Amino acid sequence: MSGRLAVVGIGPGAPDQLTGAAVEELGAAEVLIGYGPYLERLPGPLAPGRREASGLGDERERARRAVHQAADGARVALVSGGDAGIYGMAALAIDEAAALGESAPALVMVPGVTAASAAGALLGAPLAVDFACLSLSDLLIPRAEVVARVEALAAVDIALVLYNPASRSRRRPWEAAVSALQRHRAPGTPAAAVRRAYRDGQAVELSDVAGLASLSVDMETVVVVGSSRTRRAAGWLYTLRDEAPGR
Amino acid sequence: MSGRLAVVGIGPGAPDQLTGAAVEELGAAEVLIGYGPYLERLPGPLAPGRREASGLGDERERARRAVHQAADGARVALVSGGDAGIYGMAALAIDEAAALGESAPALVMVPGVTAASAAGALLGAPLAVDFACLSLSDLLIPRAEVVARVEALAAVDIALVLYNPASRSRRRPWEAAVSALQRHRAPGTPAAAVRRAYRDGQAVELSDVAGLASLSVDMETVVVVGSSRTRRAAGWLYTLRDEAPGR
Repeated sequence: MSGRLAVVGIGPGAPDQLTGAAVEELGAAEVLIGYGPYLERLPGPLAPGRREASGLGDERERARRAVHQAADGARVALVSGGDAGIYGMAALAIDEAAALGESAPALVMVPGVTAASAAGALLGAPLAVDFACLSLSDLLIPRAEVVARVEALAAVDIALVLYNPASRSRRRPWEAAVSALQRHRAPGTPAAAVRRAYRDGQAVELSDVAGLASLSVDMETVVVVGSSRTRRAAGWLYTLRDEAPGR
Repeated sequence: MSGRLAVVGIGPGAPDQLTGAAVEELGAAEVLIGYGPYLERLPGPLAPGRREASGLGDERERARRAVHQAADGARVALVSGGDAGIYGMAALAIDEAAALGESAPALVMVPGVTAASAAGALLGAPLAVDFACLSLSDLLIPRAEVVARVEALAAVDIALVLYNPASRSRRRPWEAAVSALQRHRAPGTPAAAVRRAYRDGQAVELSDVAGLASLSVDMETVVVVGSSRTRRAAGWLYTLRDEAPGR
């Protein structure tokens, strides 16, 4: 008896942003485990297995449940938004599987379109040269570390994608990011907030570093900040390699 | 008469790593334009349009051709490996379209699975917390700028994905990266080279910062270097948020 656990990134939300490999794993899973709103994005016929929806915040318990059910012989899909390996469930699933040693189930990671790619595509191509992804959530990482990192990255001339910029009760790291970016980057550097990319309620808000503080940000938003090579034209944001910075 | 240009990221290579939206655009395109080896990854029935393959290095000309054919009324897919917005053709396509002003064709970016996500999935989940993508090619970016950036990012405790680490004739930026990483990160920090992810000849080589110089790297490889939170267990590399760094 040997089960199998696929950790599946379902991309930004619309079913047509799933890869073929993700569709195959979701279709074959006897059990689908994931955060409720992610499971709700999957049409029934695409993922006909039994669904076990979880609330926010019990990620380790969710990963353990998926690993144990697969170890007991089930074919399980652990569902993550975007790419499961980027702020998703993959690392916890591996950690829980490793803890089982010889009894660990077969494990496969199915990559997906991460929020940075999705937001980038809606904006144009702001991430066409180098960039970093940084989560501003201080739930699991000490706030001082988050702030130090945003300060360090603001000073490097690459595009930045800020995941989880702020929640209703957590604005401090976002305020620190705005301050760092305004100290290190030219006021006219293009920036944007993308909310609910490829989902109902999708919204794109274009701005610049000077206007960062007025962007509407929440946990369903990613913020993209350009480098000195990023420009705005014809409604798009894009970064070019083949010319001097600052033009 | 109005054509349409879709800039399509085809992911790492295997057709089952395409998104549904990418499959749809490729199937509907009358003309497919792209670097020859990328077009060759697309099975005929999936992309039945006329193919115009280009060699390496004439990216701007390729983008211009795609934009002009779409402006003349054709339905065109401009094909990029990975995500078209990340070291792909999207920025050049926007730049060429913007130059046409009112005559520009309708333009849509179709995101895909970028090489960082593909390599990350094969390794486990090394990019589960913050990370940066950095190309070591000094073909279009001055070498001093590439080296300064790798030095700055090596000093920030996040995972790094190095695209285009080296070619036969271009090893210097890679040597600078190895030196910077060995000065800034603990020798045992996990690292890996992933070659031809999800394609024939796929190879994964696990190492650490001390062993970086012995990795085989070329233009079909991406190198992943962990942060102080990245660990190795059961053959996987993964980075955990929910524990202290350096464990």
